[in-house]
Amino acid sequence: MSFARRGKFTICMCIIQVIFIIVFGVFADYDPAAKPRREDKSAESTIGMYPMFQDVHVMIFIGFGFLMTFLKRYGYSAVSVNLFIAAVIIQWALIVRGVIHQLLHGEAKFTIGIGDLLGADFAAATVLISFGAVLGKTSPLQLIVMGLIEVVLSQINEYIGLDKLRAEDVGESMYIHAFGAYFGLAASRVLFSEEIEKSSSKEGAVYHSDIFSMVGTVFLWIYWPSFNGGAASGDEQHRAIVNTYLSLAACTVVTFAFSMCVDKSAKFDMVHIQNATLAGGVAVGTTANMPLDPWGAMLIGSVAGIISVLGYKFFTPFLASKLKIHDTCGVNNLHGMPGILAGVAGACAAALANYDKWGESLFEIFPGIAPTYNSTDYTKYHDGLQSGWSAGLGRTSHEQGGYQFAALGVTLVIAIVGGALTGLLMKLPLWDNPRGDGLFDDGDFFEVAEQGFPSSGEGGMNGIKEDTRIHLMEKE
Amino acid sequence: MSFARRGKFTICMCIIQVIFIIVFGVFADYDPAAKPRREDKSAESTIGMYPMFQDVHVMIFIGFGFLMTFLKRYGYSAVSVNLFIAAVIIQWALIVRGVIHQLLHGEAKFTIGIGDLLGADFAAATVLISFGAVLGKTSPLQLIVMGLIEVVLSQINEYIGLDKLRAEDVGESMYIHAFGAYFGLAASRVLFSEEIEKSSSKEGAVYHSDIFSMVGTVFLWIYWPSFNGGAASGDEQHRAIVNTYLSLAACTVVTFAFSMCVDKSAKFDMVHIQNATLAGGVAVGTTANMPLDPWGAMLIGSVAGIISVLGYKFFTPFLASKLKIHDTCGVNNLHGMPGILAGVAGACAAALANYDKWGESLFEIFPGIAPTYNSTDYTKYHDGLQSGWSAGLGRTSHEQGGYQFAALGVTLVIAIVGGALTGLLMKLPLWDNPRGDGLFDDGDFFEVAEQGFPSSGEGGMNGIKEDTRIHLMEKE
Amino acid sequence: MSFARRGKFTICMCIIQVIFIIVFGVFADYDPAAKPRREDKSAESTIGMYPMFQDVHVMIFIGFGFLMTFLKRYGYSAVSVNLFIAAVIIQWALIVRGVIHQLLHGEAKFTIGIGDLLGADFAAATVLISFGAVLGKTSPLQLIVMGLIEVVLSQINEYIGLDKLRAEDVGESMYIHAFGAYFGLAASRVLFSEEIEKSSSKEGAVYHSDIFSMVGTVFLWIYWPSFNGGAASGDEQHRAIVNTYLSLAACTVVTFAFSMCVDKSAKFDMVHIQNATLAGGVAVGTTANMPLDPWGAMLIGSVAGIISVLGYKFFTPFLASKLKIHDTCGVNNLHGMPGILAGVAGACAAALANYDKWGESLFEIFPGIAPTYNSTDYTKYHDGLQSGWSAGLGRTSHEQGGYQFAALGVTLVIAIVGGALTGLLMKLPLWDNPRGDGLFDDGDFFEVAEQGFPSSGEGGMNGIKEDTRIHLMEKE
Repeated sequence: MSFARRGKFTICMCIIQVIFIIVFGVFADYDPAAKPRREDKSAESTIGMYPMFQDVHVMIFIGFGFLMTFLKRYGYSAVSVNLFIAAVIIQWALIVRGVIHQLLHGEAKFTIGIGDLLGADFAAATVLISFGAVLGKTSPLQLIVMGLIEVVLSQINEYIGLDKLRAEDVGESMYIHAFGAYFGLAASRVLFSEEIEKSSSKEGAVYHSDIFSMVGTVFLWIYWPSFNGGAASGDEQHRAIVNTYLSLAACTVVTFAFSMCVDKSAKFDMVHIQNATLAGGVAVGTTANMPLDPWGAMLIGSVAGIISVLGYKFFTPFLASKLKIHDTCGVNNLHGMPGILAGVAGACAAALANYDKWGESLFEIFPGIAPTYNSTDYTKYHDGLQSGWSAGLGRTSHEQGGYQFAALGVTLVIAIVGGALTGLLMKLPLWDNPRGDGLFDDGDFFEVAEQGFPSSGEGGMNGIKEDTRIHLMEKE
Repeated sequence: MSFARRGKFTICMCIIQVIFIIVFGVFADYDPAAKPRREDKSAESTIGMYPMFQDVHVMIFIGFGFLMTFLKRYGYSAVSVNLFIAAVIIQWALIVRGVIHQLLHGEAKFTIGIGDLLGADFAAATVLISFGAVLGKTSPLQLIVMGLIEVVLSQINEYIGLDKLRAEDVGESMYIHAFGAYFGLAASRVLFSEEIEKSSSKEGAVYHSDIFSMVGTVFLWIYWPSFNGGAASGDEQHRAIVNTYLSLAACTVVTFAFSMCVDKSAKFDMVHIQNATLAGGVAVGTTANMPLDPWGAMLIGSVAGIISVLGYKFFTPFLASKLKIHDTCGVNNLHGMPGILAGVAGACAAALANYDKWGESLFEIFPGIAPTYNSTDYTKYHDGLQSGWSAGLGRTSHEQGGYQFAALGVTLVIAIVGGALTGLLMKLPLWDNPRGDGLFDDGDFFEVAEQGFPSSGEGGMNGIKEDTRIHLMEKE
Repeated sequence: MSFARRGKFTICMCIIQVIFIIVFGVFADYDPAAKPRREDKSAESTIGMYPMFQDVHVMIFIGFGFLMTFLKRYGYSAVSVNLFIAAVIIQWALIVRGVIHQLLHGEAKFTIGIGDLLGADFAAATVLISFGAVLGKTSPLQLIVMGLIEVVLSQINEYIGLDKLRAEDVGESMYIHAFGAYFGLAASRVLFSEEIEKSSSKEGAVYHSDIFSMVGTVFLWIYWPSFNGGAASGDEQHRAIVNTYLSLAACTVVTFAFSMCVDKSAKFDMVHIQNATLAGGVAVGTTANMPLDPWGAMLIGSVAGIISVLGYKFFTPFLASKLKIHDTCGVNNLHGMPGILAGVAGACAAALANYDKWGESLFEIFPGIAPTYNSTDYTKYHDGLQSGWSAGLGRTSHEQGGYQFAALGVTLVIAIVGGALTGLLMKLPLWDNPRGDGLFDDGDFFEVAEQGFPSSGEGGMNGIKEDTRIHLMEKE
């Protein structure tokens, strides 16, 4: 069996990597700013986004990777498979985005610069959020199947939302967070089995695995302003940073307040602290570049913290027991519901936006609202080269709000249907799907350092493997 | 009891957060660079400080948070409560700083941009330093009481020092490090109890908690140049980076040399490595932007390393046993004495500064020394728009040195008196103050993953909880 | 004995630090951009490289430090001694580089700015790579001896390669990675003893030490584009970032594919994941700024991944058992062979480079190929101030390829001969060289928190020290 597994995995991944190289060979080129023989030095300015790209890069690989190390016997997988999946997906996302945005628009090549690397990292985030829903229950090959399909669907969804519906989402809370969460949850529903319910003793943490997880939490918390502001510029970026910072701070305070409140012993729960503190970053993602005013950002963050903690406490157990939707990391509480909150807030903000308060920013933030080229409004408001906006679609604010809602709806439909169908494909007995003892256990796919490998049970000599304990008992 | 605790904490924090939102709603606005409808694109330049802000942000949340995880049974609290306290304080600091610097100067609103976020993070650092002194001995509510008061006092002190006395401190070694340390130590003195002395077996580390702590140490070490240089610009910033880098390098070498020297078995002590290696960053903070010359920075760092190691070895036990000042993290050795050293070095540098060596930088660094507008010196030295300095107070170098000393003295007085009074308030039996087994123990306020939770005793089966061991013994 | 050790180490390090301060006092000055009284504000632009410098800084101290924490009983040493050695070396490297590049060229002072700090960090990387080869087998003093000599030789080698042979190496894969690896391996060969072979049970990991190690791996992985691009600018830098990102992604996929393939149970091996995933960063280092095209970077990364995994599986055991070259971290597989691959790729790229495809970038990347000042080619291609290149040596592409090969050869010769001779010096019984139980064991040089300190044996009660277990047994 291990021979078959080895062959299947190695051959699959080699084929995929070779295909990637060939596709890149035929269709990929450097971004103009990265091409040789370039005389136009203005393109260098894209380097300026490099620090923010690196912040996001840390979030993807350290943030998501370590956040998921909380499971006592699944730490190798969390951080390693996170790296593996992301390495596959960033290459695939460059191709998919290149096809959607360049090849299908008649260009012979798709181009790669720092902005595209950022886009690829964002695409990886979508898949890694779904990974959180199925963590411990999937093999690497299943995750590759999921990731390859999910990137295509999520990028199509983003194209529909951003380019067709012109529904804005600067921090991609709808297109990444909500999409990733509900795609993953739909897949998780399909993959549900009774074995998963029986493995609950391995779903807990050990003391130090919870601290490893905080490495991920805190880096995500720190760099979230770069996630929400990375794709913006000028005053929009500045506002995105301030709003995200304030939203996260308020969310964190509320998370602690409610974590103790809902606990039977009036103590804090590390699960809430590891996750719900971040919900403020998701919830303000769609509106981060809008002039919410500082208090508005704080309010959104506070609401997100409440929703997230209550979700972990009451909704996750309900989903698992009643709907058979098992959500290992609780992505519904960190990415799902806060993502919907973000989308709703974005739609409301759009509907309430007006020129008197927002000024020309209205047209910069919502090209859908910007006047059409021939309209009288265009000549009235546009002052030539100084304006930061181009002719738009001439929607009213309320219409834009409707389009924002539509984009959220489309996102949820594509995510749930796509996730369920992908789950069916993942369920085929082709991908070395983990079963029984392999669930939530590094031992299934990793050579494990036995020393210090936590026991699978709850009680007992904390930190010591079951069979070692028995061995000790026998000796006595 | 747990019902009462839950209610008190949740209600308190919700009220505080609601007040924050209301105050921000009434008084807060975006920085001009973050406002919509902005046509003046020059304000965008403040985004340029974002990478350094993020470095400091990592120091506050990863650096301080993980540095304090060294206690074997207090890792959850260290990194989580650090996040919680900082989230409260950064909001509060934005208000307090807004009142002091804008509202009291007649402005209707206080404004928030990236520079203000950096200021808020700095303010949080002050409180987190004090947290180090009382680590393991305080409840979250006690820390909130401490933090809310400390921010007001430390910001007033900074206002007196910087704006009134014009005593410069680019890396805020006096206004943050010395203040935070002595405020915390004074509070710790008041909170002293015999129970704390008796809990010494829980004050140690376990092997991996010491390594977690190094995550904090090394990130603090790496980003300290951004802390000292973040508020400067141009050549002052460049110099602050070089000086801090060199001071830390020299301090680290000396720390290792003296750590082995003072150890009874001629071995390195992780406590020194986790902390004293950083003293060079504190000690050069006040003078970092001054033309110390590279050797000067290295000398300051070396002296700081010696003071800090000797402090840990001899002074901390003395303070605890003789003066009943229990200093969990040894903040006196990392922030206190090196902060005083920084202040003294700053005063000496000011007193020795002269135009021949420093040129116009003298007036840029010390506006107190810059000539007054109508003086003959002003017309002699100022060459119009090209100059980086404005008219100042016309002090001599020696006078400036005196003002630097005065600021250090004021800082120490406000910190110690304020810390002691705050300690009295914290001692009131209102804040679920930890006692007995709750000291230095996550179990008091956190749902703990029992597996892998280190035992509270020194000896025994390392890594295994006391009662589990007994359970094992009984079985035999 | 401990008295002697303490005295020797403390006095040595104090003398070294005092000498550093004196040398800096006599010969060091700030970079013009960091000097006071500066009116030319253009020099400020060097601050622009600060974010990339900080990325590299994280790689040196967090990346290398934590990568080496995988050994179960050597985590304190890995991260602490990494910090110590680097702190010594960065000061020493500033001196050595100053002598080579400034004092020997007739300048009275060597200058220090952010670019020099980056150079010093790079120099430290060389020594830390060698540290990986001898990890667990050397005392701090031995490492200081090694580092002081290695920096001199590696900087001379770099000077020969870069300045004399004009062999380009933007990410320093030859001058840092290959040099550091083979220097360390040569030293390791000389230091080989049978005691090292017998300590194999301590060479393993425990579960959480493997996860600590991933902190290092992932940060190295994330920031490697800054390592390869940090010394470049403009489109070269942009390309270096894109190429390194793609190479690492491809390398990671291939590493996972081959790690399972070569494992007897068809599982992933954390050693491969911690190390081989990074080989793509090394292998593309020399060519990162060249227009490889995206597929070329991915191909190099893929080959590096294969070489590195196969090296860990087959070559490292062979080197240890047959050639008595014991390579604790497998630096041959991560830095050595991929470094040679980088050098060969660079030579081939140079030999195949041509003006038609590369345009003027050819002359910017390879000053050796740029036309000489009086040549007809110079007047033909050079268009005045707009050109980014100056007159060069007028080599053909094939000649440049030859020089690249020559630089690789010189690097290997100096590294191996220098490393072997340095190893002889390190073997002298002067430096408190570790023996017996002191090998691969923090207990030799650190006060260890006994709780949680993993046992030295393979089996048994995982996580519990041998003697504690015996103690427990006796009690029963």
